[in-house]
This record gives sequence, C-alpha cells and structure tokens, in this order.
Amino acid sequence: MAQQTLRIIPLGGLGEIGKNMMALECDGDIIVIDAGVLFPEEDMPGIDLVIPDISYLVEHMERVRAILITHGHEDHTGALPYVLQQLSVPVYAPRLAHGLISVKLKEHHRLRGTRLHEIEPGTKYKLGRFTAEFFRVCHSIPDAMGVAIRTPLGIVVHTGDFKIDHTPVDGQLTDFRRLAQLASEGIFLLFSDSTYAEAPGYTTSEQVVGEALERVIGEAPGRVIIATFASLISRIQQIIDAAVVHNRKVAIVGRSMVDNVKMTLKMGYLSAPDGTLAPLNEIRHLPHSQAVIITTGSQGEPTSALVRMANHDQRDVRIIPGDTVVVSATPIPGNEALAYKTIDNLCRQGARVLYHRTDLVHVHSHASQEELKMVLNLTSPKFFVPVHGEHRHLRAHASLAQSLGIPASHTFVLEDGDVLELTREGGSVVDQVSAGHIYVDGRRVWDMKSPVLKERKSISRDGILIAIVTLDKSTGEILRPPKLISRGFVDTREANELYPKASKLVAESLNHQKEPGRTWSHIESTVKEALGKFLYQETGRRPMIIPVAVEI
Amino acid sequence: MAQQTLRIIPLGGLGEIGKNMMALECDGDIIVIDAGVLFPEEDMPGIDLVIPDISYLVEHMERVRAILITHGHEDHTGALPYVLQQLSVPVYAPRLAHGLISVKLKEHHRLRGTRLHEIEPGTKYKLGRFTAEFFRVCHSIPDAMGVAIRTPLGIVVHTGDFKIDHTPVDGQLTDFRRLAQLASEGIFLLFSDSTYAEAPGYTTSEQVVGEALERVIGEAPGRVIIATFASLISRIQQIIDAAVVHNRKVAIVGRSMVDNVKMTLKMGYLSAPDGTLAPLNEIRHLPHSQAVIITTGSQGEPTSALVRMANHDQRDVRIIPGDTVVVSATPIPGNEALAYKTIDNLCRQGARVLYHRTDLVHVHSHASQEELKMVLNLTSPKFFVPVHGEHRHLRAHASLAQSLGIPASHTFVLEDGDVLELTREGGSVVDQVSAGHIYVDGRRVWDMKSPVLKERKSISRDGILIAIVTLDKSTGEILRPPKLISRGFVDTREANELYPKASKLVAESLNHQKEPGRTWSHIESTVKEALGKFLYQETGRRPMIIPVAVEI
Repeated sequence: MAQQTLRIIPLGGLGEIGKNMMALECDGDIIVIDAGVLFPEEDMPGIDLVIPDISYLVEHMERVRAILITHGHEDHTGALPYVLQQLSVPVYAPRLAHGLISVKLKEHHRLRGTRLHEIEPGTKYKLGRFTAEFFRVCHSIPDAMGVAIRTPLGIVVHTGDFKIDHTPVDGQLTDFRRLAQLASEGIFLLFSDSTYAEAPGYTTSEQVVGEALERVIGEAPGRVIIATFASLISRIQQIIDAAVVHNRKVAIVGRSMVDNVKMTLKMGYLSAPDGTLAPLNEIRHLPHSQAVIITTGSQGEPTSALVRMANHDQRDVRIIPGDTVVVSATPIPGNEALAYKTIDNLCRQGARVLYHRTDLVHVHSHASQEELKMVLNLTSPKFFVPVHGEHRHLRAHASLAQSLGIPASHTFVLEDGDVLELTREGGSVVDQVSAGHIYVDGRRVWDMKSPVLKERKSISRDGILIAIVTLDKSTGEILRPPKLISRGFVDTREANELYPKASKLVAESLNHQKEPGRTWSHIESTVKEALGKFLYQETGRRPMIIPVAVEI
Repeated sequence: MAQQTLRIIPLGGLGEIGKNMMALECDGDIIVIDAGVLFPEEDMPGIDLVIPDISYLVEHMERVRAILITHGHEDHTGALPYVLQQLSVPVYAPRLAHGLISVKLKEHHRLRGTRLHEIEPGTKYKLGRFTAEFFRVCHSIPDAMGVAIRTPLGIVVHTGDFKIDHTPVDGQLTDFRRLAQLASEGIFLLFSDSTYAEAPGYTTSEQVVGEALERVIGEAPGRVIIATFASLISRIQQIIDAAVVHNRKVAIVGRSMVDNVKMTLKMGYLSAPDGTLAPLNEIRHLPHSQAVIITTGSQGEPTSALVRMANHDQRDVRIIPGDTVVVSATPIPGNEALAYKTIDNLCRQGARVLYHRTDLVHVHSHASQEELKMVLNLTSPKFFVPVHGEHRHLRAHASLAQSLGIPASHTFVLEDGDVLELTREGGSVVDQVSAGHIYVDGRRVWDMKSPVLKERKSISRDGILIAIVTLDKSTGEILRPPKLISRGFVDTREANELYPKASKLVAESLNHQKEPGRTWSHIESTVKEALGKFLYQETGRRPMIIPVAVEI
C-alpha cells in the first residue's frame, strides 16, 4: 500500500503580500484556506484586481470539499465572487466575514446558490478526510481566526493573519489555551503568518493607539478628522470611545466607512451610546471643539473624502487652521506618494496633521519575531511552512524556526504553485501547478500570458503611432503617402512639423523597395523600420508603430 | 529712496525632494544656488528627467551673475546641461562637483563655452551685489558645501544638503568654526536642509556603517557583494578599507560605479593600496573568501548589475549559496517594489542578503532634528526659510525653528515660484513666477501644459482604439463599416468577437443619423458615442477612441 501523504499547494500569498490562498489535499479530498485578492501594483495600469489562478482546483472540482475563510479582509476573501463562478463548493467563514462576504456576493449577484456557512470557534467541521476547527486570533478586524485541521497524518495549524495583543479593543485574545491543548496532541504541520517576520520584538498593542487618540481628541482645539481603513473596526471603536469621553459627536464619512460602521453596529461588533453618531450635516452646525469626523482616504485614494478635503474639494468639510487631522494608518507599499501628497496638502490648508512618522497613531496587526517564536514554541510542529509574505519574509521566518530547533529539512519555503508532499517522515516538492496572477479588468479576466497589459505599459512609455497605408485593392499599389496619427508621443505642434516629413519618407522607402508580389507583411515592416528610424533620430523615442492597410 | 530688499525665489526643491534650485535677487543682481533634476515619478511614464522651469531666469538673463553648486549630486547639478542651453552664466562648484559636471557637460557637447569655476572653501567670490563664500559640510559625497552670501541686507547662509558627522570617512567635518565666525557678524537669513526634519535625534555617523561592513566582510564565508549608490564615495572607501583588513580583493561592477571610482581615485577622493582593486575576470578566479564586489543596483534598477545577478542573468557573477549580498542603501521613495523584488530574488538564489531592515548597513546623510536645532541656534538667523523637502518636512522644520524662539512672522514656508521679498524689518510673498515641472523626454522638453503625458496615462489605463472611417471624397458618404484596431484594450480572441459587431453597430448609427451637410466632427462624435457605449457594456472599460477619416 502506498504511504499516506498530505499535499500542500499554495495558490497565492507566498512571495507576495496579498491574494492568500492555500490548498490541502489528502486521500483525494481537497480543502482550501482563504481566497483573497491582490491590489494591483504600479506596473498593472488599469487593472482592478488580481486574483489567484485556480485552474488546479477547477480541474479537480469534484474533490474540493470546502473553502475556509480565516477573516473578512479582502486579501483573504476578495476572490470569492470569481472563484465561486467556477467552483461550486461550500464556504465556511467567521460571523463578521460571513456578513462582509454576503454583501460582496450580493453585489456580484452570486449570493443565491452559494453555500455560505457561519462558523463557531471550537466547533468541528467534517470536510471529507479533514476536520476543521477555528480558533480566535487578534488581528485588525474582529472575528479573525486561525484554523486547526485534523488530517490522517496529524493536526495542521494555520494561524491566519494574527498578532498577540494582550489588551485588544474587543477583549478577544489570541486563543493560546486552545492552541496549547491542540499542541499537547502533537502538531504535524504549522502554517504561520510571515508578514512581519523581519520585525524584531513584539508588535505594540492597540491599547497604545487608543490612548494616543484619546489624548489627541482631548487636546485638539477644533475639529478632529481621523482617517483609517474602513475595515479597522477596532480603531473606529477607539475613536468613538475617545469622542464620548471628551463630549464630542462623531460623523462617519466615505461610502465604505459608512457601510462598515452600519453593518458592524447592527452585528454588535461596534457600539456607540445613543446620540454619539450623527450625520455630517448635523455635525457641521456644532462648535468645532465638539466634532470628530471618521473618514476614508488614509492611502491617498484620489476619490476619497480625505483627499477631497485636502484639495478643498469636499462640499461639507473645508479644512481650516485649527483642524487636527490624524492619519491612523501606514501607507501600503506603493501608495506612499499619494498618501504623503495628501498629508502635504492638508498641511497646506493649515491643518495640524499627525501620522505614523510623527506620532504613535497606528500600529500594524501582524506578529513580530517574539510573537512568532511564541507560536513556534507553543505548537512545536514537526513540519513548518511559513506563509503570507514576500520571499525574504518567508526566509526570515524559516530562519527563526530553525533558531528554535526545527530542522531545516522540516522547514519548507515554498513558491505559489509548488506541490509539497509530506509523509509522516519527511517531504519534498514533487510537482508544480499553474499559479500566478489572474487580472480582473472591468468585466474581463486575463491570465499572465495576455498581451494587453504589456501593450499598455509599452504605449505608456513612448506613445503610439498609427500609419494608415492606402492600397489599391486589385494591384496592391500604394496610392498615397501614409496618414500618421499618434497619441502620447508628440504634441500637435511637433506633429505638424514631423509627420509630413515622416510620411514622405515612408512613401519613398515603399516606392524604393517596390517589387512584384510584395505582401502586406513586407509593407508593414518597411513602414515600421523607416518610421522608427526617422522618429528616433528626431525625438530620441520609439513609439509603438501600427501600420494599418486600407484597401480601396 | 525705496527701501533695499532681498528677493528669494525658489524654483525647485520646495514641496518636493529633488530639482533643487533657488534664486536670490538684490539691487538688480540675481544669483542662483544649485540646478538639480527630479527623477521621474510613477505618474510620469516614459519621462527621463524632470528639470526646473527657469523662464524667470531666462527673462532676466542679463542680470543673472552666477550659478553656485553646493555638491555633485544630480538633484543639485543635473539640470545644468539644460539650463546652460538657455542661460549663459558662470558656474561655481566645489572640486569634485566640478569634475562630475565637466563629464556631464561633455556628454551634452556643452563643456566648451561654459564658464565653469572650481571654488575653494573660505575664498570670497564677488558676484555683482553678492559675495559668496563656501564652507564645508558633511554629506554622502565628498566636497559638499554650504554657502554664505554677503548681501546689502546682511549674511545669507544656505546649508546645502548636510548632516553633522563627528567621524566622517574623509575626515572633513561640517565647518562649525566658520559658521560660528559668520554668526558673530549676525545672520540675516538661513536656508536649511529639511529632508529629515521629521526625524528625532541625531543621524548616525558613517563610522557605524563602516564597522558593520567590516564585520560582515570579516565573517562572510564566501564572496561579499555590496550594492550602493555610485556617488557614495565614502561608502566605497569603507568597503575597500574593510576588504584590505581581511585580505580580500575588490572588483567594481556597473558603468556609473566604474566611472566614479576611476574619477575619484584620480582626483584623490578615494584611495586603495596597489593590487586591492582588480578587474572582475581576475577576481573570478580567486577563492570566494578573498573576493569583494562593489556594484550598482541598490534601487533595483532593471538593467543594473545587481538585478542581473538576482535574475541569474549576469555573465560573470552567478549567485550561489555561500554568497553574502549587502544592499548598502535605502530604497528611494517609489523604488521600494523594485528594490525588494531584487532582494527577494537574491534570497531565492541562495544568497544571505543584508539590508537596512535587517542590519545597520546604511545611514542617510541629512541632518535630523537635533542637528537642525544646532544649526538654528548657532546661526540664530533673523529670518528662516526651510528648504529641500516635501511640504510637511518644511512645516516640521519651521516648527522646530519656532520652538527655538524664531518668531513665526520671521519663518517662511514657501512654495516653488513664490517671490519672498525681505526688508531689514520683515517680509512677505509679493509675487509668483512660473515654476513647476519641465519634462525631458528623449530629446524633447515639455512643460506641464503638454497633453502628451496625460495621453500616455489615459491610454495605459484602458488602452486605445482606432476607428478608420472610409468616406467618399466628393459626397462625404461613408463607404463601408469602420475598421477597428486597438492596443492595450482587448486580446485578439476578444477583438475577433467584439469588433465585427461593434463595426456594424457604428455603421448603423452613422446611416441612421445621416443628414445633409454632415461634417466630419459630427461623424466623429457619432462614432465615439456608439463605440464607447457598446464597448463599455461589453467590457466595463472605456478605451481612448480615435476616429480617423480616410477619403477616397
């Protein structure tokens, strides 16, 4: 009989921050942990979202038993509307994530027909050969969970995104007690969050931020406007609590912030004494020293409320000296320029601006090295796979594990698409499945082989030039000098100077090289070459050149 | 008689990090401090460089007496080849900057005819109504200077880029003695570097990095490959010194690194015992424990040596386990993604990678708050203008000055193009001159009004679609359904599906709306509207649509 194996197949989140997705396979059954998106990077112009490549799962659809969701952040849930289009499988999620996913699926007209289950921590869910049990962890959204999965080879623990906060805002601690109980049975495999595996020490508690915000609100002479992530419910709670202490009313501004506050109030994840929350147009008529505004835009998103305030373009809130603005977030990598530009513009309007560089108004929500060590020591797993993070983070986490005595041969730094096969004794990468970026652009979905993105980037560097060549339908003869139209290459003045010359030159090259039986592809390359050479000489640039035939 | 005034006209570097340029005007004479470039940001696709708008200087060319250069970095010198095309004025620069500028002007065929003077610190240069004297400061390039300028209203001190390092690599201290002497005469106006005005405390000395690098080189089992900025001569010296201590030979890789090492060795700013430096193909044959390689690519520049090594694409150096790579630099804002990707890929090849997040292998070279306070207190200027930095940095620096007793009314946070007029008693912004980004694109130079960049950005989001409409020359009748060609919008498969339908639809709209005397602009808007609507329905995207008429 073949030895029993557990196969680990990361489909996203290894070597990148985002689109977390991990498949486990045993005795023919597959379960999936998370189904997140990656927010598009600078080199993906026009792209709305990036989702994981799930072709492996689609191929083995009849064996996929469930998708387990650890928490409600988009980088763990955002691909669900796309994944569920191709894969009809039940989804298990904590209560708040369940609520957020329901809203999202409804938007995509995909809620009906989806088997979406709300889980309870501590309850066991049998999913083919797997039995999953969620346990609480602290993270920057309520109801964040890790998951322990019993498999025929032993217990697999996945931490989800977590930190160890001894004084979290909602009082829900990372459930070490349950982890310790599970550990006493022996942990076969640990997946643990590597996002901050390079950060020494401990991550600061949310409590410290709460105290700082209360001080700021207490001392501010005028309005206090605080921008944060719409999903950072605990931060919103801290702001509301501080406003209550200092007899201020709170307005919520920004669509996603308003939606999230409404939902979490209803679900009980957020609380505010009656009369604390008020619409902005009521707050506007209060003395400034009685007003707090919570808003989106901490990342400098161009259409967000904070950015419009910074640009004097928000109808209801006009920043004036005396206003205090707090950016209670750090810029996500790639957003720095926009975020700082917003801070600069708020300063220009006369506001006092506090942000992570000047004041302790934000802490992140992933475990630092000492916390990671605690989880490694507590679970003391037989095998370890660091997850969630760019490659250097995974390596750093692997080094930490080795420094605590987990053998290098039992630590696996994987890439998305690797198939790690574990037996009771050891493991190795035995195969590769298709894994990479799938781009969502409007209503279309592209894989990495699509030329469209490459074209966009190429055009954005040097522009594009269309050369319309008019041919005689019957003889193939070129009837007039080509017509040239460009965008992103030269301005009108320069075009008027360059293009008549360029067109003449191309016509000459075409006449010069005339030969019997000349094909369009020959004409095309002549046009490209003659034009390209001339324009590079004149401008130092190489626009994309597209010859087009019009036959008459 | 009108009161005597000093006019301060920043043309770059205020509200941004880069293209530093400042004009002073008194009694009709103008002098300029620095003429730098800004490296293009993400939202400037295809742009090579950004330079200051000098139209004010060109307009008053006959009154411009000199350009003073504080040090040889590109953000202080890089615009000279462009500025000197339009402005024939003498340039004064410290010795190393003089060397670097000469090379650059030669490349631009502009060295002949330029009056480029090498200055000596402590020497007085009479420039119309101004007398300039340079004094040494510490910065990340040798021969960095501040400048004291005697004006009819008093002494103006400009710090240049600086930090206070008590143990600099080249032994050249920031010249506090001279600054104190000048201060004893009274300082009318201080310009001081704000880049790190938000950083509390003191900037760490270069010495600490030198010690760290020596330890790394001493302990490394194999090759040590160190990437840093090509202009960071003191870092290169530290690496050479450490290599000598540990009996290693050093190869220099990367064009700009090789050029700078060659020049600074010749000029005496860099020294290496005979036989220490060796070509790479000699180093290749040494045992790895005897080799150090200094290279470019610390910013993840795609064509740099380090990036090619990271991608297994460098002919001479193939990264293997046992190699130690040190990135002795921090990513410049906007370069983070590329820099970290390079580090990740080096890790993947098996190298041990040390960089600023993991080890103290880099310090920056601008003054932190305590150093800034020292300069403010030492000079105790009557008026203060923070320079070099984004708006929030300037504000932070102004707050520091006010915390030391400089009145808010004597502190001016300016924007580029502001004309600040100072009398002996006070000052105010009295005018605005044209100041902003001038884009260098290949051999062309554009101002901010040019539509080209906007077109590039727009196309890069949703792509471009050309609709060729064939008209009867005499009747204006449309002879066939338009031909559609696109790039960056859909792939071929999708185009084959969509475009026949789209073309037919446009033809129908055109026929439907046929009317006597219909003009091209009418046809154009019909095509745009019909196509735009259909394509948005089908794809959720709005490509740029360009209707083109072909008359036959």
